[in-house]
Amino acid sequence: MDLLNAREQLMKLQAKMSAYSHAMGLMYYDGSTAAPKGTAANRGHSLSVLSEEMYKLSTGQETVELLEYLDSVKEELTEKEQRMVFLMLRSIRQMQKIPMDEYVAYEELLVQSDDVWHTAKETNDFPLFEPYLEKIFETNIRFAKYCAPDMEPYDYWLNEYEDGLTMSQCDVFFATLRSRIVPLIQKIRQKQNIDDTCLFGNFPESKQAQFSDRLMEVMGLDRNHVTIATTEHPFTTSLGSHFDTRITTHYIPNNVASSMYSVIHEGGHALYDTGSADDLAYTVLDGGVSMGIHESQSRFYENLLGRSRPFIWHIFPIMQSIFPLQMQGVGAEDVYRAVNKVQPSLIRTEADEVTYSLHVMIRYELEKKVMCGKLSVHDLPREWNRLYKEYLGVTVPDDTHGVLQDCHWSQGSIGYFPSYALGSAYGVQLLNKMKETVDVDTCLKEGKLDPINRWNREHIWQHGCLYPPKQLLEKALDASFDPQVYTDYLEKKYKDLYNL
Amino acid sequence: MDLLNAREQLMKLQAKMSAYSHAMGLMYYDGSTAAPKGTAANRGHSLSVLSEEMYKLSTGQETVELLEYLDSVKEELTEKEQRMVFLMLRSIRQMQKIPMDEYVAYEELLVQSDDVWHTAKETNDFPLFEPYLEKIFETNIRFAKYCAPDMEPYDYWLNEYEDGLTMSQCDVFFATLRSRIVPLIQKIRQKQNIDDTCLFGNFPESKQAQFSDRLMEVMGLDRNHVTIATTEHPFTTSLGSHFDTRITTHYIPNNVASSMYSVIHEGGHALYDTGSADDLAYTVLDGGVSMGIHESQSRFYENLLGRSRPFIWHIFPIMQSIFPLQMQGVGAEDVYRAVNKVQPSLIRTEADEVTYSLHVMIRYELEKKVMCGKLSVHDLPREWNRLYKEYLGVTVPDDTHGVLQDCHWSQGSIGYFPSYALGSAYGVQLLNKMKETVDVDTCLKEGKLDPINRWNREHIWQHGCLYPPKQLLEKALDASFDPQVYTDYLEKKYKDLYNL
Repeated sequence: MDLLNAREQLMKLQAKMSAYSHAMGLMYYDGSTAAPKGTAANRGHSLSVLSEEMYKLSTGQETVELLEYLDSVKEELTEKEQRMVFLMLRSIRQMQKIPMDEYVAYEELLVQSDDVWHTAKETNDFPLFEPYLEKIFETNIRFAKYCAPDMEPYDYWLNEYEDGLTMSQCDVFFATLRSRIVPLIQKIRQKQNIDDTCLFGNFPESKQAQFSDRLMEVMGLDRNHVTIATTEHPFTTSLGSHFDTRITTHYIPNNVASSMYSVIHEGGHALYDTGSADDLAYTVLDGGVSMGIHESQSRFYENLLGRSRPFIWHIFPIMQSIFPLQMQGVGAEDVYRAVNKVQPSLIRTEADEVTYSLHVMIRYELEKKVMCGKLSVHDLPREWNRLYKEYLGVTVPDDTHGVLQDCHWSQGSIGYFPSYALGSAYGVQLLNKMKETVDVDTCLKEGKLDPINRWNREHIWQHGCLYPPKQLLEKALDASFDPQVYTDYLEKKYKDLYNL
Repeated sequence: MDLLNAREQLMKLQAKMSAYSHAMGLMYYDGSTAAPKGTAANRGHSLSVLSEEMYKLSTGQETVELLEYLDSVKEELTEKEQRMVFLMLRSIRQMQKIPMDEYVAYEELLVQSDDVWHTAKETNDFPLFEPYLEKIFETNIRFAKYCAPDMEPYDYWLNEYEDGLTMSQCDVFFATLRSRIVPLIQKIRQKQNIDDTCLFGNFPESKQAQFSDRLMEVMGLDRNHVTIATTEHPFTTSLGSHFDTRITTHYIPNNVASSMYSVIHEGGHALYDTGSADDLAYTVLDGGVSMGIHESQSRFYENLLGRSRPFIWHIFPIMQSIFPLQMQGVGAEDVYRAVNKVQPSLIRTEADEVTYSLHVMIRYELEKKVMCGKLSVHDLPREWNRLYKEYLGVTVPDDTHGVLQDCHWSQGSIGYFPSYALGSAYGVQLLNKMKETVDVDTCLKEGKLDPINRWNREHIWQHGCLYPPKQLLEKALDASFDPQVYTDYLEKKYKDLYNL
């Protein structure tokens, strides 16, 4: 093999992989947007063919030889090429450590368990789901031991979702949240709560769709490359490359804030995805680097900007023009206060900015205990309910609104949750750094987000997956991650809002 | 190779090919429905990767060996397997006859020419398109000679779109149309024309969408497997297998008939596609066998049923309930007459049932002359305009509304048009046969299309591509194709409508 040829092959291989993932991603997107209801099995048929082809392509003998050759001459490669080879080889080597039959059995287990979870959630039947969840935890522990025998299994999985993340880091992070946010919430509970009735009323779907377009415009999303559709659960996906990004939302006719913040949240993901440098397209470096950094961007736009006073002051006249009747007798400050109402509740996805991280913390603590053998799956619901009472002060009425609410575990995603809370915390520190050079409040007040987007593009988006998340973050911050910055922000904002 | 294994491989190969065509079909569908505007290049990137993979898969050495082995033991195969092997080998052998570099150059030519055609049509600039169209005709002649040196090139291409079709058959067919329909139209022109104002007015898109749903319901389309979207030009496509079929329409706010008949026409295609026997799914036998048979079904529902008196009498109360204001003072008979108004015009896709075939005939005559070297591409516009005057009595004002109107030639589809007219004629003969055992008029009057669909499924749909179109048709008819049946039908219907 000669170097010139091998470098060309490397690009071709990634271009092929992009095309396959475009095809598969589009099938999933189509399944949740446009496809007729009865076509899941048909899609499953094609997806299984394509994923097998993708597997062969990305782990086949020819690919391994190519990557190993390039790895052996890595000092001759560019920084980007080195990172491509590193990421691709790492994932192949991990795959190789798992016996194929166990891998296939696990994939089958996940298809079944997702189905069973849906039924269990609908019928409030945790015992139905329990044996599947047990097997999932069991398999995740086993696979972690295959791949990284020297690591704690839960560390292995945390690291899978957020490169470099460990339990000890999470422990410090969540201990900070626990010690600062739990008392903050207790104080808030003693106060008269905010009146948020202005957000509820008659907000017709077609008007909300108009509002979505305006929000996307204010955010600076390029509609030639980003589109919006409606789905049951909002999400963001890029197809083929960052040149084609889709966000989705869900309209609730009597609730304007639900879709508004979905659009801003998913819009943040889309800004990150579409912000990759163009020469990263059709390579494994295209798009966001990790769940944590992705959430740092989506929650940055959703909460740090989208729930800030200057942003609401800019958006309010737009709301008035689209919803003149609904906004009668309401002021910008009323909307600002309403979208920041703190209300401990049962469901993570509906939680406010302050309580959100505690929902995540509960999941972290439970996952950790099960993965370390200190809690049985059987006892999960009891422990879940106990922690909701302790941290959030709410009583879980049934498992549907408790331990069965999220889809993550049924899909095998264990170690994924912490990145949600980490992302929120990263975001605050990034905002503070940005404020050193950008007049963020003025940008927001005037609805001109360009300088904000430019900062994010320069420090985060353009790099795609070129740097590991920790390094990317520290480069952007010129400092280490410090969870206190996040809790300081929350305390300051909510002490002001609640006159504490 | 052993037989058992080879048969399994045959099924696996086709399953793979279905998955690739699912992926590519979905990308095209997505491009005309949901994708952001600026993403064509991104899609092109993935499509070129997937089509190359599809090409390798369907014509690679391994595939050829498998098919040749199976062909050598064909007496041991089922009828279906024999047909699969036959169809796949035939297409490989043809591909092999075209030098790869010429094939690639042609594909590139088509991408460019489609683009140039769009501009030429927009700016009424045939000379811009002329050199491209010349090359396309030239290449089609050359390729035909490679593939079938003993055939007339135009026969080769007719046969590509309608297995078994020849110029001499088309000549007989179109001569019949010419001798019967041209005089019919002349007689109609001398009469006071039908008043169709009831079809034009304020028909809001959302109401028309409701109407589409009702039409699909009446037609018996299974919404679990067939969905509708809006696109610039209506079409039908199946993704992966006949289990997932999409139709599209285009709503014109002041014209209720345009989308109504698009939905019924595309719905007819969808009924045919989804009617394949389930065990044909994921094989090359799945779906419609040819353009001609496909049009026989779509135009069957559109014209023979959809523009019949009993169907309109069933649909009229539905129109009244959805469009109460627009239908005020209008009766079912008014609608029946209006949807059957004959009006010679310039544009094929907007033509009525009677003049439609003449539009097709003009294209057939022109293609034939160019393919046989009796007309230069340069002289096409002049000849086009002359024939429109002669057959339809209309004056073509410019090439945009003349020779540049259709996309087919710019996409290399030469020999495709005749199947549109053939399909209409097949349909009438099928309807007459059906009426021997099915009380079609009563079914239509009551809006119960089940017996009609059942007949079509039994005689046409279920067979997919198992039989060549001619054989399929003759089996269904228990007779040969006879174009007189079609002209008889038109004469009878329109003599009645116009009191001739």
